Amino acid sequence: MMIVMKPSATEEQIQAVVTRIEDAGARAHLSRGDVMTVIGALGDREHVSRLGLEGAPGVEKLVPILKPYKLASSQLSGGAPSVLEIAGRKIGGDNFALIAGPCTVESRDQVLSTADVVNAAGATMFRGGAYKPRTSPYAFQGLGAEGLRLLQEAKERTGLPVVTELMDARDLPAVLEVADVIQIGARNMQNYSLLSEVGRSGCAVLIKRGLSSTLEELLMAAEYVLKEGNENVLLCERGIRTFETAYRFTLDLSAVIVAKRLSDLPVIVDPSHAAGRRDLVVPLSKAAVAAEADGLMVESHHEPQEALCDGEQALPVEALMGMKDTLQPFASAMGREVI
Amino acid sequence: MMIVMKPSATEEQIQAVVTRIEDAGARAHLSRGDVMTVIGALGDREHVSRLGLEGAPGVEKLVPILKPYKLASSQLSGGAPSVLEIAGRKIGGDNFALIAGPCTVESRDQVLSTADVVNAAGATMFRGGAYKPRTSPYAFQGLGAEGLRLLQEAKERTGLPVVTELMDARDLPAVLEVADVIQIGARNMQNYSLLSEVGRSGCAVLIKRGLSSTLEELLMAAEYVLKEGNENVLLCERGIRTFETAYRFTLDLSAVIVAKRLSDLPVIVDPSHAAGRRDLVVPLSKAAVAAEADGLMVESHHEPQEALCDGEQALPVEALMGMKDTLQPFASAMGREVI
Amino acid sequence: MMIVMKPSATEEQIQAVVTRIEDAGARAHLSRGDVMTVIGALGDREHVSRLGLEGAPGVEKLVPILKPYKLASSQLSGGAPSVLEIAGRKIGGDNFALIAGPCTVESRDQVLSTADVVNAAGATMFRGGAYKPRTSPYAFQGLGAEGLRLLQEAKERTGLPVVTELMDARDLPAVLEVADVIQIGARNMQNYSLLSEVGRSGCAVLIKRGLSSTLEELLMAAEYVLKEGNENVLLCERGIRTFETAYRFTLDLSAVIVAKRLSDLPVIVDPSHAAGRRDLVVPLSKAAVAAEADGLMVESHHEPQEALCDGEQALPVEALMGMKDTLQPFASAMGREVI
Amino acid sequence: MMIVMKPSATEEQIQAVVTRIEDAGARAHLSRGDVMTVIGALGDREHVSRLGLEGAPGVEKLVPILKPYKLASSQLSGGAPSVLEIAGRKIGGDNFALIAGPCTVESRDQVLSTADVVNAAGATMFRGGAYKPRTSPYAFQGLGAEGLRLLQEAKERTGLPVVTELMDARDLPAVLEVADVIQIGARNMQNYSLLSEVGRSGCAVLIKRGLSSTLEELLMAAEYVLKEGNENVLLCERGIRTFETAYRFTLDLSAVIVAKRLSDLPVIVDPSHAAGRRDLVVPLSKAAVAAEADGLMVESHHEPQEALCDGEQALPVEALMGMKDTLQPFASAMGREVI
Repeated sequence: MMIVMKPSATEEQIQAVVTRIEDAGARAHLSRGDVMTVIGALGDREHVSRLGLEGAPGVEKLVPILKPYKLASSQLSGGAPSVLEIAGRKIGGDNFALIAGPCTVESRDQVLSTADVVNAAGATMFRGGAYKPRTSPYAFQGLGAEGLRLLQEAKERTGLPVVTELMDARDLPAVLEVADVIQIGARNMQNYSLLSEVGRSGCAVLIKRGLSSTLEELLMAAEYVLKEGNENVLLCERGIRTFETAYRFTLDLSAVIVAKRLSDLPVIVDPSHAAGRRDLVVPLSKAAVAAEADGLMVESHHEPQEALCDGEQALPVEALMGMKDTLQPFASAMGREVI
Repeated sequence: MMIVMKPSATEEQIQAVVTRIEDAGARAHLSRGDVMTVIGALGDREHVSRLGLEGAPGVEKLVPILKPYKLASSQLSGGAPSVLEIAGRKIGGDNFALIAGPCTVESRDQVLSTADVVNAAGATMFRGGAYKPRTSPYAFQGLGAEGLRLLQEAKERTGLPVVTELMDARDLPAVLEVADVIQIGARNMQNYSLLSEVGRSGCAVLIKRGLSSTLEELLMAAEYVLKEGNENVLLCERGIRTFETAYRFTLDLSAVIVAKRLSDLPVIVDPSHAAGRRDLVVPLSKAAVAAEADGLMVESHHEPQEALCDGEQALPVEALMGMKDTLQPFASAMGREVI
Repeated sequence: MMIVMKPSATEEQIQAVVTRIEDAGARAHLSRGDVMTVIGALGDREHVSRLGLEGAPGVEKLVPILKPYKLASSQLSGGAPSVLEIAGRKIGGDNFALIAGPCTVESRDQVLSTADVVNAAGATMFRGGAYKPRTSPYAFQGLGAEGLRLLQEAKERTGLPVVTELMDARDLPAVLEVADVIQIGARNMQNYSLLSEVGRSGCAVLIKRGLSSTLEELLMAAEYVLKEGNENVLLCERGIRTFETAYRFTLDLSAVIVAKRLSDLPVIVDPSHAAGRRDLVVPLSKAAVAAEADGLMVESHHEPQEALCDGEQALPVEALMGMKDTLQPFASAMGREVI
Repeated sequence: MMIVMKPSATEEQIQAVVTRIEDAGARAHLSRGDVMTVIGALGDREHVSRLGLEGAPGVEKLVPILKPYKLASSQLSGGAPSVLEIAGRKIGGDNFALIAGPCTVESRDQVLSTADVVNAAGATMFRGGAYKPRTSPYAFQGLGAEGLRLLQEAKERTGLPVVTELMDARDLPAVLEVADVIQIGARNMQNYSLLSEVGRSGCAVLIKRGLSSTLEELLMAAEYVLKEGNENVLLCERGIRTFETAYRFTLDLSAVIVAKRLSDLPVIVDPSHAAGRRDLVVPLSKAAVAAEADGLMVESHHEPQEALCDGEQALPVEALMGMKDTLQPFASAMGREVI
């Protein structure tokens, strides 16, 4: 931590900062410039983070030096990217994952038909929501426990691992019975008790970036899971909120590239929620492959026009069936294989 | 709902939309322009919201006409603003509320000292967090149940109603024992199961606007509570995330003014979290009064330099003691009284 | 400037940075932490800003210490806020300015009628655009030279100083004949050749903050004018672009408060362009007074329904006539007078 | 244009709107819903855009139906994307353009050395700035006329067409002597007099998207050029401003994909300014190819460490030399060739 003092800081104020640093068990190191003095607080992270010097007399600003996340960081490791193995499927490294399925489990017919297509399309995992966060309390909220049961049936039928969202810690035991990967939605990215709980479960977790979360905050969310000893964490970029109104969210592919430099965790892209429009899903998917993503999570529905949720962004069956072939040339250019 | 058809839409596509509207139990109404056709779907909200016409062939875009929130809206009422009565205190109307207290309950000494000051300062309510959402898993997370017990002690000692945050539905029974107002934090604004649960409890709820939430989403969050028959809802503006880095968040006072036109619910402003800097709290508070806010929620600490959380934004005792006098001239100009 | 080295930086890389700093005529100062080394580059701003160490081997990041603007900054002054005197009117200090007029000069009748009302309303200055930046090339672009002539007539008739926008340096001589204050619009805030030109003219300048400009960039724009020896600079907050769609821009009153701490220059608020809606202009104006603004610039039109530009945000005559009385109680609470 | 009336609108207010529409030479078409009435204003764009009904009594909101840009739009055309031919080079269609060069012309040695490398790397065009918009008035502002002369020398030596920025209409004649493409920078995207002037020159124009401009505004900027009969317009995505601080701007590749659906104009991506970091340029370039961009504009410098401007984002020589080979596999997957 560097503490920048105001030009008007008095010698007493400077000494008070030094004393406080030393009382906290850290070392103080002064650089006196022509105009201002900068004080380095050297020591371990815990000591330094507790200094509470913000707004102290004579202090202009604090500049953190170390990244606030330890476990999610590749800063101190030499760091080959992680390859996770989840239910026998490899995520990361040379493998490009294709996760597909409906936004929401709506009926037995829908979930099984779509699962069959997802399987036939050669996808890595099957996704589907039993619990759905909806902006409106009047919108369809998911089938809950019945939805989980249908996901289990789809899993047995196709052999595909299942990704499904958890919104409420009280549903964790039920979700754990079927989920191979638990999804934490963008709106719950900073639901810290949920993250810790999922961390303790040991189940793999896919954490979606919040609508206006920084990469640092996303990595801190991952840190909540990692801290519980659970290393099976996938990050997911799904678009951020900007001023642009021509599409629902702005997919931030720089975030994918940079997350993979800041951290060793695999990064998945969700182009469906980002775009909110079916016609952008395949183009954005290609770009995501080229932007070093480790996989995609796309929505698909056997009858998009009839979907109870987000039908406008679901890929129709034919588009999904062609997805692997569409993406493989880009994956090849990246030295990877769509599995 | 208006459905705007593409210039290239065929007569068959137009008819397909009309048929779908009628099948859904609504009425279709065509306006044929020189270039494009627009189809109105008239009927009750439930019918119209289920049309699923997004991305249908020939459809350019959908334009919703009615606000998606019913109970939070002043659109259909004639609407005098609500005056809520919570634990004997009036919020709204001519009353300007001052809610103050520490960010987090840290110790018996701290909470009681600060409560005494808040009481002496003539505040309307006392706030303090027993459960704290922290970006970092390594930061102080609050005292939990012990914190609630200390809040109860402060309440008995001062007679001030208590505002405290709930992060996890499993803590609701414990929180209900002390809270007069349950705070839903910005990061949980779209935690819908939490909102519904709190709605069912009947306890008054203060909902903070999410860091990048639209007003419509804030009102939809309120709708989750109102739908459970709980009308004691306060909205809270606490700053939004923008590109500006000179302050932590950008306090959006237009949101206060507009929320009070879209809805009858009282709106509180939290200048402490918005600014993240103590020196901006009083100036922003004055502006909030002038911007039609129904009250303020500010952080105060008896020793800000020692605070375990957000000390840099806590008002010192003297500033809090002068707050009512500082704000009353602005409140008077608004025809209100700081109570 | 502090240079933060990577944990993996070698001793050679550290020495290379030190050498580069010394070659640039500055002094290097090392702080070696347990994990990382931080190097201070001490010396005058010009030396330090030319180091070009971004992306150098072993360098993690650069942290600037001094503000990049010298003349606009109150950082090194003790700094009482400036009171400018423009055409006999004082701006800043205890004076709260009310600048009003139509968005655009449309006709002799319109400009003279509105000027009469602005005068009768007791405003400080009259505003009106002869050149209008319009998003669409098909929209009315202003009357140009004829508009300037009409502004001159209004000025002679009412005695009010005139604020008018300059978009193109080639129009400067003509604009200087009538303007007491030259407005630089938000879209030209970073039109540096225009700023320099206006700086050299010596005429007072009102610089509107760009739609997504930081305060630092606004102050750097002011610096372009100040550097030419022209100290008559007014800053103007007029709303920034965010994700919110319920109003046109998000008026950032924190920016007003903070700009007045970072700089001694007066700050004016334009609530009309910020809101884009007439009904928000008076509420936002009250908030602006309370947020330490030194004045307001509002749009008014004698027949808003007939305006060729931005009619939806123009105050009708009656509202403008009451503006001084409406705002004075708030100004009084700030220790100021609406002049 | 659809005019949505308030639920409380009276019959008189509805009739007043109808009358106003008809007086403006358009046709009015009423849809009366259970709650609200919507009035369509049908007629040509000019009539309808002048209605001025915003804020009229009883009016809730206006919903534009047609895109406001005519010439830039592919809405009414059947629209194969344009292939422009500029100085013998094709832009668009199956051709993927690589434009490279230094941010700024600094010296004869630098510009010629870099031009040689750009030529050897097989680039399509050479870029370099003689006039530089700099946030700080103390930063290097470019060599001006001398810079243009050096660009001319580089052009004669290599045969590469030249892209260079114009900031001030008064420099247009000098710039036209060397430029094959005139660049309008992000900060001048809404400098409408500059756009019109460049439009009239007939020279090809590359328009960079403003830092917080919508796609619609970018297309409106293009419309200013197109309206003058100049069809040689290239759009350029260069990153938008968001809350994220880990990189300078957020490259918006959705904008590329969508711009190519809204318009037939070619779209170029500038990853160098977007990222502000050399290490992200190649990864973002790959993603841009996959996101349907028609070309790239990258910064390169023969000695990035010595660059007077933006050295931290300039590609070193070796990276540029490998660029075509690096990108071709992605271009091949898109059915294109890097030329």
